[in-house]
Amino acid sequence: MTLKKGKLFGIGVGPGDYELLTIKALNVLENVPVICSPRSSPEKESIALSIIRPILKKRENREIKSTSEKINNDFKNEESCNKLIYDEETNIKGNKENLKVLEPVFPMTEDIRMLEKHWDEASELISGHLNKGIDVAFITLGDPSIYSTFSYVQKRLEKNFKIEMIPGINSFTACASSIGKPLVEKDEILMIIPKINENIGNLLKEGNNFVLMKTSRNTEELENIINEQNVEKEITSVQNCTMKNEKIIDGFPKNKPYLTTTILKLKK
Amino acid sequence: MTLKKGKLFGIGVGPGDYELLTIKALNVLENVPVICSPRSSPEKESIALSIIRPILKKRENREIKSTSEKINNDFKNEESCNKLIYDEETNIKGNKENLKVLEPVFPMTEDIRMLEKHWDEASELISGHLNKGIDVAFITLGDPSIYSTFSYVQKRLEKNFKIEMIPGINSFTACASSIGKPLVEKDEILMIIPKINENIGNLLKEGNNFVLMKTSRNTEELENIINEQNVEKEITSVQNCTMKNEKIIDGFPKNKPYLTTTILKLKK
Repeated sequence: MTLKKGKLFGIGVGPGDYELLTIKALNVLENVPVICSPRSSPEKESIALSIIRPILKKRENREIKSTSEKINNDFKNEESCNKLIYDEETNIKGNKENLKVLEPVFPMTEDIRMLEKHWDEASELISGHLNKGIDVAFITLGDPSIYSTFSYVQKRLEKNFKIEMIPGINSFTACASSIGKPLVEKDEILMIIPKINENIGNLLKEGNNFVLMKTSRNTEELENIINEQNVEKEITSVQNCTMKNEKIIDGFPKNKPYLTTTILKLKK
Repeated sequence: MTLKKGKLFGIGVGPGDYELLTIKALNVLENVPVICSPRSSPEKESIALSIIRPILKKRENREIKSTSEKINNDFKNEESCNKLIYDEETNIKGNKENLKVLEPVFPMTEDIRMLEKHWDEASELISGHLNKGIDVAFITLGDPSIYSTFSYVQKRLEKNFKIEMIPGINSFTACASSIGKPLVEKDEILMIIPKINENIGNLLKEGNNFVLMKTSRNTEELENIINEQNVEKEITSVQNCTMKNEKIIDGFPKNKPYLTTTILKLKK
């Protein structure tokens, strides 16, 4: 008899507000035995993990409660009654019986060989669980199909394991909601641009509505190209969208935290 | 003393699967006194309304129960114990005490004067409630900022009323999840195209990843332009995404129901 393999979920947890999780994501995250949330450095918790903090808390309490009940019934030792604990050796945080939180490091680097090494390691860590028949939920900020680190793990594991993606709220639609304006109407084209480059002039010619993701990576020069467009334009930036420190700014902001998105509309 | 005005919510209910509602949308829809869901003809329920059917059922039961309890306690008449009823005159469906469902008609026409007349009427219907201090939730398929009928009502009411938009899952990210592939990675540009026209050639030149919304409106000629692109390409269409009758098709489909989206990737 062969063991049934676990299933990998790629779950979008939305832009920041816990309430922007979908019911589907919630149902999986409340029950899945392993949650994987990559972080950019060993010291920093990922934003995705901080978004689902209420679920972790709830599970922690539920699991402590159920373990306590078991202990009361069985008069067993209290060792398994621990809170979520961090196991340095395995890089695993969790109540040993019910929930494990894997936090592999995906460093912020452009060194592709170093990145591939980390993606390989994370995929191995995940497949170790899947091979034991344990389901794993990989969580990602926003949506798992849009500029997501999930893609790297997905490519490595899709041949051998069943994968289910659960879409999440994108930062750009959340930004439009925060601003309180439509992104696109009628037959308008929407262009999502993660990093503006020398083609920006052509793109500006072809479209009316643009989302510039990760504005923090833009250079002043490219912002100038946009500012110099000889048409009526609306430029609005949103920082830390739907989070407690959300900020909406007219134009391009001077200070640019990591989570800054700019919406650009050209009135041709 | 002036009456406090009601608030208008513009709520994205996602692509079709009830579980793709956000927690935030659920919280509002379970409690708001008036839900507005435009439909394309008087005979047809809107898809958005059919998605939130479980919430309507739950509220119906809850309200019947609470009304029955009241009757049992007070020995009052049973008139208010009705199920959701349809009032032909006011175009209002609802338990009179607790939930009203407004279903104004937004016909599928390109006659802009006729459309404006209907949008005006719907906005008046909604403002009638807001002016009485009653909150209204306008529901829309997908997300309220992306090609949504909500925009038309929003424009008419935003000067006089407080409006909150709640983002929803887009059809295109849901399609990517159903297909099980990323939409965009790294520094790739994503173009969302609602209606392909004579500029399609230029757009194809500038981008790699395209979402063609409402594929049903494409002509064969334009599909040929795409098919003739002399680069490796991946074309996948999704019909009725995340619904029970979801269908994933390689290339452009021959039969095109209203909810058909095509994802196009050019490997340049």
